[in-house]
Amino acid sequence: MNNFTFQNPVKLIFGKGSIARLAREIPADSRLMITFGGGSVKQNGIYDQVVAALAGREFIEFWGIEPNPKIETLRKAIALGREHKVDFLLAVGGGSVLDGTKLIAAGIPYEGDPWELVLDDRKIGRVVPFADVMTLPATGSEMNAGAVISNLATQEKFAFHHSFPRFSILDPEATFSLPPFQIACGIADTFVHVMEQYMTVAGCSPLMDRWAEGILRTLVEIAPKIRENPHDYDRMADYMLCATMGLNGFIAMGVPQDWATHMIGHELTALHGTTHGQTLAVVLPALLTVMQEQKGEKLLQYGDRVFGIREGSSEERIERTIRATEEFFRSLGLATRLHELGIGAETIDEIVRRFDERGTRLGEQGNITGEVTRRILERCK
Amino acid sequence: MNNFTFQNPVKLIFGKGSIARLAREIPADSRLMITFGGGSVKQNGIYDQVVAALAGREFIEFWGIEPNPKIETLRKAIALGREHKVDFLLAVGGGSVLDGTKLIAAGIPYEGDPWELVLDDRKIGRVVPFADVMTLPATGSEMNAGAVISNLATQEKFAFHHSFPRFSILDPEATFSLPPFQIACGIADTFVHVMEQYMTVAGCSPLMDRWAEGILRTLVEIAPKIRENPHDYDRMADYMLCATMGLNGFIAMGVPQDWATHMIGHELTALHGTTHGQTLAVVLPALLTVMQEQKGEKLLQYGDRVFGIREGSSEERIERTIRATEEFFRSLGLATRLHELGIGAETIDEIVRRFDERGTRLGEQGNITGEVTRRILERCK
Repeated sequence: MNNFTFQNPVKLIFGKGSIARLAREIPADSRLMITFGGGSVKQNGIYDQVVAALAGREFIEFWGIEPNPKIETLRKAIALGREHKVDFLLAVGGGSVLDGTKLIAAGIPYEGDPWELVLDDRKIGRVVPFADVMTLPATGSEMNAGAVISNLATQEKFAFHHSFPRFSILDPEATFSLPPFQIACGIADTFVHVMEQYMTVAGCSPLMDRWAEGILRTLVEIAPKIRENPHDYDRMADYMLCATMGLNGFIAMGVPQDWATHMIGHELTALHGTTHGQTLAVVLPALLTVMQEQKGEKLLQYGDRVFGIREGSSEERIERTIRATEEFFRSLGLATRLHELGIGAETIDEIVRRFDERGTRLGEQGNITGEVTRRILERCK
Repeated sequence: MNNFTFQNPVKLIFGKGSIARLAREIPADSRLMITFGGGSVKQNGIYDQVVAALAGREFIEFWGIEPNPKIETLRKAIALGREHKVDFLLAVGGGSVLDGTKLIAAGIPYEGDPWELVLDDRKIGRVVPFADVMTLPATGSEMNAGAVISNLATQEKFAFHHSFPRFSILDPEATFSLPPFQIACGIADTFVHVMEQYMTVAGCSPLMDRWAEGILRTLVEIAPKIRENPHDYDRMADYMLCATMGLNGFIAMGVPQDWATHMIGHELTALHGTTHGQTLAVVLPALLTVMQEQKGEKLLQYGDRVFGIREGSSEERIERTIRATEEFFRSLGLATRLHELGIGAETIDEIVRRFDERGTRLGEQGNITGEVTRRILERCK
């Protein structure tokens, strides 16, 4: 096992009716700004629950943080927050609203342009405290310090890290009105978060392996039930818990990490606006195929423990395991090939060009170069 | 899944050489008291590592916190801490030293007798910040807010809860000199911590089930390797991580808990001084036998997933599963019957008398009364 340091101070408030706890958790004298996405929380009743929980409090609202939150939008939110001397932020929405709010929190006290903070998070100083009501389980942002921000002008999408939410409220009922495609992308995103921390070198930590496999197996078991009935409280609660536990550091203690699938997926989103979880479903099976020699022992363990693949030669089992992974994504209703998304060869060229230009070397061994990325993307054309 | 609130702010610093990080983690201007057990840290080099890490700092030392820390000892430590106006505590030792230090931390600012805080932790006000270097993985105290304190005068042993360590340093090499009996008791303690949070009602949370089973399976897999070579760094690291993850709230989200085995075990320790983990190895298999109807579905799942018991009728599988549990404890070199520890019928009478007098009702359904406890203890005579 590798040496590690772990700390995660987020207070999770989980379950039916938990939005009502908001008033108790936000300091009474806060100058509060609430941030939202496009308005679905007005249709599904979440907005009304938040307003009811904060009855008698004053707050301002910022609407319009889009999926893959754009720096252009967040600059406006930062200006509004400064104008009103905001000292507490509450994100109400999915991972994009929260990710955007993480940048607003760091950007309000920062004197330069906030995109500088995305490019270099060491520039982040004081941060306005923030919390969230999470309506779409997927990114794990509710229990980590990371965020991913896009730049329309430069067609770039980058992750940065600073501080954790003070608290996160997770009510599985808030997910009942999600469109099936968003649920599918969220399940894929969670699945791949776990794979990024698990599918590397065998034998580093038997406990972390079991915990990662525990999330993967749970997702495989509950996905068809959720597809059948997205109003099944217990299954949506299971999914929400998996999403949060998938990227909060709990399964990353003492083990190496990969993240190449995410980095390649981010480029597809930056260039085409493709939904994040959908990009991962395309890239992961291809990456596993290209990297199967390096990841072979772990692929065999994953096939055995997650999909029950135990018969045949190593080569056959690995091949069946990668196919089972792709089939899992297809069972969610997602595409697993670039052509299904209308993405062609010129995008592959552009991503390889960017990686070469930046000197990008991805994966747990830092050996996924631009040329390896080309092989991966050719594989999922 | 049940509603829940989760928060655990402890900073874990894990791995070889991590004691050297002490100076960075303890505020430089602290009036520091370091607390110790009986002196084994002087033999195994841990004391020297701590002193080296804090070179140039002033601190006072309190020695002699015993296994099952006694209120009588802790009163002396509190007096010493007050005398020196101590404002940071560092426990160096196993769970008992840390548990005792948790009471010292709450007792220094408290005006009354500290035993009152054990009996009613709502009386705890300000707490001196504390941290630890853990040398014996078992209690999980390094990542939770609980502690168990004994009272020699009244032959009582009770748990209380207040605040978390600021940080916990876990270096698996610190365990290399532990006697085999202490390692065995630590593994049993960890195993039963997990069982208390897992072996209740089936179907509450598939993810928490997988995580609990992940710890149990890891313990079953590594125990014989540790018995063979207690200087195997990776296996001791696995064990240390299991111990910490077994009682830090990570596997308790949204699920009911039992804790009857611990409560009955505490009485055996209070009356006979029996090592904690050893009492649990005696009580758990008997409790599973007596409560097998209520816990039947979960026992079948546990037998399947932890011990691979899948053949035969439900009754047969449950019986074999409980036997496998007892055999696991025996494989550690522990006793599983009261007579092996020289404990007889009069102790059973006394425990039942105490439970009846206190109106004790234990277990996830609150139905383990004095009389049910008698049946459990008769079963492991």
